[in-house]
Amino acid sequence: MKALQNKIITEGIVLSDQVLKVDSFLNHQVDPELMLGIGQAFAARYADSGVTKVLTLESSGIAPAIMTALTLKVPLIFARKQKSLTLKDNLYVETVYSFTKQQQNEITISKKFLSAGEKVLIIDDFLAYGEAAIGMARIVEAAGAEVAGIGIVIEKSFQNGANKLKESGYRVDSLARIASLSAGKIEFIEE
Amino acid sequence: MKALQNKIITEGIVLSDQVLKVDSFLNHQVDPELMLGIGQAFAARYADSGVTKVLTLESSGIAPAIMTALTLKVPLIFARKQKSLTLKDNLYVETVYSFTKQQQNEITISKKFLSAGEKVLIIDDFLAYGEAAIGMARIVEAAGAEVAGIGIVIEKSFQNGANKLKESGYRVDSLARIASLSAGKIEFIEE
Repeated sequence: MKALQNKIITEGIVLSDQVLKVDSFLNHQVDPELMLGIGQAFAARYADSGVTKVLTLESSGIAPAIMTALTLKVPLIFARKQKSLTLKDNLYVETVYSFTKQQQNEITISKKFLSAGEKVLIIDDFLAYGEAAIGMARIVEAAGAEVAGIGIVIEKSFQNGANKLKESGYRVDSLARIASLSAGKIEFIEE
Repeated sequence: MKALQNKIITEGIVLSDQVLKVDSFLNHQVDPELMLGIGQAFAARYADSGVTKVLTLESSGIAPAIMTALTLKVPLIFARKQKSLTLKDNLYVETVYSFTKQQQNEITISKKFLSAGEKVLIIDDFLAYGEAAIGMARIVEAAGAEVAGIGIVIEKSFQNGANKLKESGYRVDSLARIASLSAGKIEFIEE
């Protein structure tokens, strides 16, 4: 997606060869027009997939995911992230490790919002090692629902999340794929 | 806003005379069409207010706030919520008490995204005692910017947040105002 690549080039900040900061348009300050474009791009790719729900993880996934859900005319669910959980009644729970924050989180979804037979499009802002996406996919499958695909705004292709997800049989659609952040330079994989 | 009231009546769950659960369309599962309608309603009320940015608090504020920002054609900022903070460089920080969760949170915004002279519309999903809105307003003012107003999806008018904000001189626009949750029954203040 060209508009997204341009935004990453002009506003992305390379913090290290592993970390790209995009807090001016994606995960702190947010560009609503760009989010709408991102939502429309995901929706176009899944127009014929019979998607019944969009699923994301709070907080940074919500903006691109709500625009996807709006365009596909289906509800959005955002999974909740918590440090540790005492009450697990009526919840699907998966433990997810965040390499960025170096901590475990439990992600949860109320059982009443995911049913057997549903087709779920998972959306997230970043794909690095794939932990969050795998956690969400496990929950979808625990509900007896199907993962239609995994839509990612920015894939760090030099980390192994995308490969891992594809090897597990999931369809992955990333709107920007970063080959490398070495030497402070952002290099894309061109489609 | 009639569509919102109807949704609250048909799907809201009264957990106690203080707590209304709306996780089927606002803060866990989210209805994107309703969020767009909410965003358009806020935008219409602030069309002539010279708003330069929309500000909300993660996570439940993001969906209504991004639709408001989209319609007003301005950026959104979502403030981050953290338990406690070690690094405060280049951040505006306010401590906010959550009565629902009975805990203190620090809410933060990067200094680079709020400038003197800006006009900021604060959006939040709920208004109870006004703690989150006041915290956000303090940050806006610490930046030398102005609070254009505070837009609330659901105001619990029987708690004193709205009065407190209005007495402090803020404009408050709530799309649904709940007079009472007594005896399991939702009563609205009709406009």
